This record gives sequence, C-alpha cells and structure tokens, in this order.
Amino acid sequence: MEVQGPVIVPAMGDSQSSLEVKCFDRKAYLTQGLQPYAEVLVSNFGRVFTISPVFRAEKIRTERHLIEYWRIEGGIPHCDLNSLTSMQEQLISYICQRLSEEGKEELEVIQRDDRELRKVQEPFPRLTYDDAIRILQKDGFAIHWGATLDWEHEKHLSLRFGHPFFISEFPVGIRTFFFQSNPAKPELTMSVDLLAPEGYGEISTGGQPTTEKEKLLRKMKEEEISEEEQRWYMDLKEIGSVPYAGFAIGVERLTKWICKLEHIKDASAFPRLLDNIYP
Amino acid sequence: MEVQGPVIVPAMGDSQSSLEVKCFDRKAYLTQGLQPYAEVLVSNFGRVFTISPVFRAEKIRTERHLIEYWRIEGGIPHCDLNSLTSMQEQLISYICQRLSEEGKEELEVIQRDDRELRKVQEPFPRLTYDDAIRILQKDGFAIHWGATLDWEHEKHLSLRFGHPFFISEFPVGIRTFFFQSNPAKPELTMSVDLLAPEGYGEISTGGQPTTEKEKLLRKMKEEEISEEEQRWYMDLKEIGSVPYAGFAIGVERLTKWICKLEHIKDASAFPRLLDNIYP
Repeated sequence: MEVQGPVIVPAMGDSQSSLEVKCFDRKAYLTQGLQPYAEVLVSNFGRVFTISPVFRAEKIRTERHLIEYWRIEGGIPHCDLNSLTSMQEQLISYICQRLSEEGKEELEVIQRDDRELRKVQEPFPRLTYDDAIRILQKDGFAIHWGATLDWEHEKHLSLRFGHPFFISEFPVGIRTFFFQSNPAKPELTMSVDLLAPEGYGEISTGGQPTTEKEKLLRKMKEEEISEEEQRWYMDLKEIGSVPYAGFAIGVERLTKWICKLEHIKDASAFPRLLDNIYP
Repeated sequence: MEVQGPVIVPAMGDSQSSLEVKCFDRKAYLTQGLQPYAEVLVSNFGRVFTISPVFRAEKIRTERHLIEYWRIEGGIPHCDLNSLTSMQEQLISYICQRLSEEGKEELEVIQRDDRELRKVQEPFPRLTYDDAIRILQKDGFAIHWGATLDWEHEKHLSLRFGHPFFISEFPVGIRTFFFQSNPAKPELTMSVDLLAPEGYGEISTGGQPTTEKEKLLRKMKEEEISEEEQRWYMDLKEIGSVPYAGFAIGVERLTKWICKLEHIKDASAFPRLLDNIYP
C-alpha cells in the first residue's frame, strides 16, 4: 500500500543534519525519512511504500549530496535482513530491466548503453562490513574495525564492482539507534546498504528496527528526545507493533548512477544544495 | 510526465500563510505549490503532473485546514479555461468510477454508497463568480461583487448541489497575481475552483497564469519579492515559455468528501494542524 508520512516532524534523532521549521510557537523539523512512522503503517497495513521528499542538511559539499531529495521507502512486516536484501535487488533489477526496454530513446540521448543496464540482474554480490574492512585494509587503507565507511572508502569498494552490491551488518556504534542488534553477534546491527558500482557508492540503506524497549528508551535519552515526544512511539510498542524491516532508496542517487551523471544536481529539476536553493 | 517541484523555496508570493525554514544563513520557505516552477516544466515536457506535499500555515482552525497536505497538480500547455475544466471533471469522475468499482469493500466499511459515487460523471455544473454572487444575494447573504467567497458562502453554495461543480472567473482583486485577466472582461481572472457538494466546498483550484511581463513585475514588487529572486522567472519569460493552464486538487479534501469525513484530520495518517504536529 502506498502511504505518506509527515514532512513536518516534532523531534529528530539526528539533529546534526536536521533542517528546522518555524512552526508557530514551537520548534519543528523537516523529515529525514518514514521511520519511525513506518512502524505504525506496517502494523496497520502490512507491506507499505512511499515515494516522498526528505531533507538532510549535512554540512559537506560533494557531488552526491542534496539537502532535499526524494526517497522510495518500503516497510515489510516479519521480514529478515536476507529477505530485505532480496527485495531490494529485485526492485533495482526491475527498474533497470524496464528502463532498458522502455527507455531506449532516452538512454540513447544520454549515451547510456541499454545492454549494460539489462545485465543488472539479481543476485547482487553481498559483502559484510567485516569483508569490506578486510578488503580496504588489504588495499592499503588505514581503517580499523568499527570506523564509518567514508566516501573515499565507499568509492574504492564501488570501483571494484561492475554490478550493484550490498554491505551488511554495520557495527552498533556507526548506525542509528533504531536498528536491531544481531542476536548471534551483539556488536553488529541488522542493517544493509546497497552500493552502485563504478564509483557511484551508496544508493540505498535499510535494516531491521529494534524491538527492545529498554534500549530504545536509553538511546532516546542520549539523543535528547524529550519523554513527551517519545510517548507515542513507546505506546505503540506497548499496544503491540509488528517486527519489520525497511529500506530507503535515494531517487536522485539511483538516477545519478543509472544515467552516469557527474553531479547529483543534474538528477533534480530544481536541486537544493547546501549553498544554493535558487531558484 | 510526472515531475517534482522543490519543497524548499527561496521566495513566497503569499507570505501571510507561509512556513519558514532555517536554511543555514538565509530565510527560505516551504512550497505552496508547483507554480511558478510548473512553467519551466510545461515549457520543457508538455503536459506534466505531480503528487507532492504543500504547506499553508493559515491562521484559521476549521474542519478543512491542514498546514501540511498533498496535492495533485497538473500543468497543460496551450490550454484554455474550458479545457482545464473538462480535464478536471474527467479526472474526478474517473477517480469516483474507479473507486466505486474497485473499492467496494472499503466503501462498505465506511458506509459510503458506491452507487452514489458512480453517479459522479461529467459534465459538472458550471457557475461563474457572478452567478455565485447572484445566488448568495438572492438567498439573503450580504455579499457584494468583488468580495472573497468565505467558507460560509462556499458551504451554502455547496449544499445546493448533489454533484461537484465549478465556479470560474474570480475578480482580479481576490486571486493571486499569477492569473491572466479575461481579455473581454479585464476585471475577471481566468481562474476556476472545483467545489464538492453537500457542504464540503473547494477541493481544487486552477487557472491560466498571466503572460504579461509588465503586470508580473509590478505585482512582484507589490508582494516585496526581490528583483534577484524574480530574475529566473523573468528570464524564462524572455527566453520563451509557453502559455499554459494548471490545476491543483487537495488530496485530503477530495478524500474528506469522497469518504464523507467530518474532519480533514481523518483523511491523513499523521495530520499536521495549526496547534498540533504531534506525533
């Protein structure tokens, strides 16, 4: 079922990169994604998806950051990381197949070989975070286990592949607190990123949100989300929500890779950048 | 072609009801609709539509105002008011027909008679603003020509109909400056509203944006839009844009009428109201 989450939200886990709205007497923010609202929708409707705008004011200027972009987000009840990965590779394959069949004329204009796109078929290679670190270390990067994969790391890994590929199970410290821990390896989260090949890097992120109430409360306190603003989510956990998994594909990043664009601003009709929101 | 306009915009014609975003060092606003960006898209792609969120912080509390809502907006090149009206009634009829066929189960749950919806077929009755004023005066309202149709007026008119109906050609003074004047009657704008019957009132608004550069510049000055922020739009007029017409249907208002809801908040999963944006 297609759903819509709110754009204006009262609280924000990641306040570093949030955009603030003057909403009468109170502070509010622009959404960074369907989570945690997805949980209400999944609990009510089962499988849901949305295609809607999200906002991230990260203070970095790169060829792949817009402060306003669109996401395809999905939420699937009773879904594990493996099924989530399959669903994403099916979706990306489907998009590439359809484009190679129905977009021939447009692909020719941008000199993108439709036969290359036709080759994008599941299954995609699957790396764990551990694999990724090992490859990077072997290739001479001074990175230690537990560190965030920076853009240079992503790019290096992504240049090794001719196909989209997954990196899964990021450590607890570098993912948002919403993710479930791996029961067998509690230092890892049940999370997965999808990277485009040829240096394009991350186009999708996903995982299984945690169902542990205590952990959530502790983490929300750490993030300074007020008790009043936590209540509805905690109430939902109390009344009974379903375990689920979700993913979010960045539409402009996907477009950037598919069309082999140099800058993400060319994937948007009216790109909003850190230093330019005109016109 | 489906398109997306920006959500964060640098200038706002109607600053009374705008929501402000803190966008680093500069003031920005949340979009109130695809116009004037529609003009760029129509000039490039021909017929376009978008389904996306818009924001209006009108300081009135009614059962039909959300500060954040979704709109179906369409832009059609070389289209007059008459064709625009036809297109809208075809779309609304189509939605009602499809629902009555495919949504039987859901309609039964909310006790909405699918046979009633099946009767919603074009052509819809067409009133002019002049007709509307005459009817209201005859029915005892103390309204003069040139006044805005308030909610009580809309409701009264809307209660007289069992079918959606149009009101067109609103006076220059009560419509935004973007609309074209009627060449035969310069005191009237080429604008049209679609009202739902049975007291539900306006669900759509549309018209032909002006192509008169002088008038636009004068009006933009009156609205205190800075010259720098006008430039791109004026450049577009200079380079050559196409005359077009556009409409915008409020998704939650349409839903409110179709489902016969008492309050618009019931048409949204996470309604954002003037005094409540929680959760």
